[in-house]
Amino acid sequence: MSGNGEMTGAAFIEERGRFEGPITITNTNACGIARDTTARWLSEQVDVHAKADQPLWLPVAAETFDGTLNDVDGHHVTAEHVLAAFDDARSGAIEEGNVGGGTGMTTYQFKGGSGTASRVVDIDGTAYTVGVFVQSNFGKRHLLTVAGIPIGVHFPTDESPNSDLGSIIGVVATDAPLLPHQLRRVARRSSYGIARSGGIASNESGDLFVAFSTANADVIERNFGTVSVEMLGEGHLSVIYEAAIQAMDEAIMNALFAGETMVGRDGNTAPGLPIPVVQEILRQHKRLVDLD
Amino acid sequence: MSGNGEMTGAAFIEERGRFEGPITITNTNACGIARDTTARWLSEQVDVHAKADQPLWLPVAAETFDGTLNDVDGHHVTAEHVLAAFDDARSGAIEEGNVGGGTGMTTYQFKGGSGTASRVVDIDGTAYTVGVFVQSNFGKRHLLTVAGIPIGVHFPTDESPNSDLGSIIGVVATDAPLLPHQLRRVARRSSYGIARSGGIASNESGDLFVAFSTANADVIERNFGTVSVEMLGEGHLSVIYEAAIQAMDEAIMNALFAGETMVGRDGNTAPGLPIPVVQEILRQHKRLVDLD
Amino acid sequence: MSGNGEMTGAAFIEERGRFEGPITITNTNACGIARDTTARWLSEQVDVHAKADQPLWLPVAAETFDGTLNDVDGHHVTAEHVLAAFDDARSGAIEEGNVGGGTGMTTYQFKGGSGTASRVVDIDGTAYTVGVFVQSNFGKRHLLTVAGIPIGVHFPTDESPNSDLGSIIGVVATDAPLLPHQLRRVARRSSYGIARSGGIASNESGDLFVAFSTANADVIERNFGTVSVEMLGEGHLSVIYEAAIQAMDEAIMNALFAGETMVGRDGNTAPGLPIPVVQEILRQHKRLVDLD
Amino acid sequence: MSGNGEMTGAAFIEERGRFEGPITITNTNACGIARDTTARWLSEQVDVHAKADQPLWLPVAAETFDGTLNDVDGHHVTAEHVLAAFDDARSGAIEEGNVGGGTGMTTYQFKGGSGTASRVVDIDGTAYTVGVFVQSNFGKRHLLTVAGIPIGVHFPTDESPNSDLGSIIGVVATDAPLLPHQLRRVARRSSYGIARSGGIASNESGDLFVAFSTANADVIERNFGTVSVEMLGEGHLSVIYEAAIQAMDEAIMNALFAGETMVGRDGNTAPGLPIPVVQEILRQHKRLVDLD
Repeated sequence: MSGNGEMTGAAFIEERGRFEGPITITNTNACGIARDTTARWLSEQVDVHAKADQPLWLPVAAETFDGTLNDVDGHHVTAEHVLAAFDDARSGAIEEGNVGGGTGMTTYQFKGGSGTASRVVDIDGTAYTVGVFVQSNFGKRHLLTVAGIPIGVHFPTDESPNSDLGSIIGVVATDAPLLPHQLRRVARRSSYGIARSGGIASNESGDLFVAFSTANADVIERNFGTVSVEMLGEGHLSVIYEAAIQAMDEAIMNALFAGETMVGRDGNTAPGLPIPVVQEILRQHKRLVDLD
Repeated sequence: MSGNGEMTGAAFIEERGRFEGPITITNTNACGIARDTTARWLSEQVDVHAKADQPLWLPVAAETFDGTLNDVDGHHVTAEHVLAAFDDARSGAIEEGNVGGGTGMTTYQFKGGSGTASRVVDIDGTAYTVGVFVQSNFGKRHLLTVAGIPIGVHFPTDESPNSDLGSIIGVVATDAPLLPHQLRRVARRSSYGIARSGGIASNESGDLFVAFSTANADVIERNFGTVSVEMLGEGHLSVIYEAAIQAMDEAIMNALFAGETMVGRDGNTAPGLPIPVVQEILRQHKRLVDLD
Repeated sequence: MSGNGEMTGAAFIEERGRFEGPITITNTNACGIARDTTARWLSEQVDVHAKADQPLWLPVAAETFDGTLNDVDGHHVTAEHVLAAFDDARSGAIEEGNVGGGTGMTTYQFKGGSGTASRVVDIDGTAYTVGVFVQSNFGKRHLLTVAGIPIGVHFPTDESPNSDLGSIIGVVATDAPLLPHQLRRVARRSSYGIARSGGIASNESGDLFVAFSTANADVIERNFGTVSVEMLGEGHLSVIYEAAIQAMDEAIMNALFAGETMVGRDGNTAPGLPIPVVQEILRQHKRLVDLD
Repeated sequence: MSGNGEMTGAAFIEERGRFEGPITITNTNACGIARDTTARWLSEQVDVHAKADQPLWLPVAAETFDGTLNDVDGHHVTAEHVLAAFDDARSGAIEEGNVGGGTGMTTYQFKGGSGTASRVVDIDGTAYTVGVFVQSNFGKRHLLTVAGIPIGVHFPTDESPNSDLGSIIGVVATDAPLLPHQLRRVARRSSYGIARSGGIASNESGDLFVAFSTANADVIERNFGTVSVEMLGEGHLSVIYEAAIQAMDEAIMNALFAGETMVGRDGNTAPGLPIPVVQEILRQHKRLVDLD
């Protein structure tokens, strides 16, 4: 991980090689309430008899800044919103674009937000999934690159100094049995997906990534005794890297393509990506048919 | 920095080499509210006309866990407490022991809390101050070492698994003109003060340190143009290191010596360090007179 | 920096924010002789009277692995070669392709080697140069991307497990007055140029980057006293980042386009990039005319 | 790890969580020849038929600077010395003091060198060993602390600027089944042993540590497939930390106590620690009987 946004729990992850409880992603000024509320919710899940042993939680809460569209200084996110999000959490397809923490986010000065993508890789006959979720909120428009084609330059815009105020949070999830030091490598590589979309991790951008595996979940946090953990041989990592990078790039694209024009605070407007025009440009470059 | 506690703003510091606004230190479950409230307070300090430019803050809020004495799951710290702390902030001597964020903290299984110490070093005829503030909440008792003498072993205690639940936050401040990469070196070294007091940065301990300089404060955050910054030659750093390590050790001692017996949640008690007995042991080892 | 190749002097750079003497880049098994010889050469440059003060050098020597074309286990690079390189060093245009350390290197399973590129950026009316030099030796062929177009897939190849044995060393040089913590940020970002060319920082790849500024060169290593150093405001860094990423991508391309088919050890052959075919593919995608 | 000495292979360890082949530790200017020769020796151990698959090695070679006693600029260490060291390597007690790489090293301005110490810890009824080897070459004399007692101040010395030219390499070995991310934590903590002996990780000091486990040795480097690795629950790590810190402190003491007065280059002399005087001081402080 690198960057200058906020992801609480990062020191815990770096040290312990794992994290506890749900990851929350919200706007910059709500990162703290999301974190504290997650800790509260986690405490309520465990048996409260042993009050001598109040549990200690260091939850992961991350943020990007939507201050152009959202009245962030109004601090509108409350503990109730966070708890409602936990109640609403379910398996299945993930909404993209102007939803959740991504509601007020922009990407390459178009409307961005939440995005997700995944790849399935075959390793020795076993299919593993590498999934990515992003809250995408970064990039000057001229940098936007879709399927390798410079798209942003076709849509000149007024580039205010503020347009540097952007970040991206990326979460990589896999069921491949990777150990903490391997997951760290995956998280680092996943940032290359940003680069593919044109990103430069600009000065004020906080590009923070975390990768986790659902394998070994029950044993990796065992406090005492000796446990056996499954580990994928490192020779297979390149396949995982490639999947994570592709999925990161695509998740950003999905956030862009799902994002719809939004009028926010004080009439500030973030235009949705003009998809037909983008498609036409890609077609001219023969990049709509052979999209890999 | 290393460890597995929480210090928000750490990614910003690592990247930008600086931080903005006051540092808050509180209990684990209040770290988020301290952070968000600091952001709110900072926004209220700046001119609110330019509402198109809502400012972005990534404040530093750190924590240690006082769940044995404090009902942390009660989430009693509110935004009002944080704002009151800013109102009450003033120059001068700092209270130590059972005050502020340190109120419910323990150190080597005695009552700990807030502590501070400093050294003045002479560099080429200029006197620079190296000051340390700690919120000290770590350590199993048998490890406690005072002035090099094993003290903790004289006070056997029941060492529950929970006694590992401890951390320390250390803030090093200096007026020596150190650049960000130099301050990072100072922050790392300051942890050696923990080692002198007997600390081992145990498994569940989050030992997080930040160092800042009051020099260059006006220019280091200048966004545009080219500025001149003062830099102390690196050959002087060893003197700064020694001062920071000594002050860190002493600040922990001050937290211990100022801490007073406290009865907390559910009758849980943290005993104050029995100072006369400690003094007598030091005297026997001839370490009370020649304390350096 | 990240990756698993070798760059000696890295710990020094991380700590001191600078390095001393020339950077050498060679094959994996000659990294040590390059390093030691640089130390010897540096000692011979300084006044040898004060023999009580033998100087201490921790030079930067980096490597990539050319074991397919080169008989690396023959350890053919000697101190004389290193010293000759120092004697031959001069200003001006840099040769690319099959030269120097890059002689036996491959890139995306085509012949690669040494490459360089630069950008000039205007900051407040001052022109700063951001230059990149790479020793490029990485990548499976199917990943090769030129100007955003997937090129490698047009040239299927036998992908042996060994094709993962690749790395890249990137050196970013600028005359913009950047401080050590800013240069670290530039070095990190420069890796995004790898991603643009299709790279995934594969499992066995050691992708190591270093960035330095020629500004402040005389003062940043001053050991004692207090000095003034020039610092570019961080708001200008995004422009530097974009330049470094572009130049990194282009330097890799230049290593590829300048590389010529080479028959090495035991008849092993690395084919040069078939430039006319690549140009034709780019033309079909309308990426030869509108290359930005 | 932190510091500004040299330990080749560090990037590999950081990424891959392991290293290959023997660790060599020598003087600063021989670090490269030790590294290259280790690579050559490793290649000679493997089957040389498959010349298409020349192996790639990134060995660990570390250094400290003995330029006061040794004519380092004479570059006297040759490949033959390195190979002879491999031939001479055997199990059993390790010589300490003026031997091997430690021959010309000083510690707290007394004669230092090689040192070793270990602890056996009981975890759930299994005895694990935590061993430390150091090449100790750091520290200004006034800082020397033995068993918590300031000893160095009793032996005032001329503190030349050069007395800052020192470093320490520490290797922690254990048979406890620790994963790479856990070993990294152990390596970091082990530096606290330096602090206990009075060290401050001074400006020019390169204090580099590596920790490895002999458990899982056969599987952790398995390239393909999925393997089971044993992992000690993290709740046991504090015991390992304490052992590593104690052993690091003691290994430094052993290097000092075993070091004998040496007259080196140009008559430069490093005095051995005057052991009887030190013992008398410790006795006065009642720290010779209750040495833990």
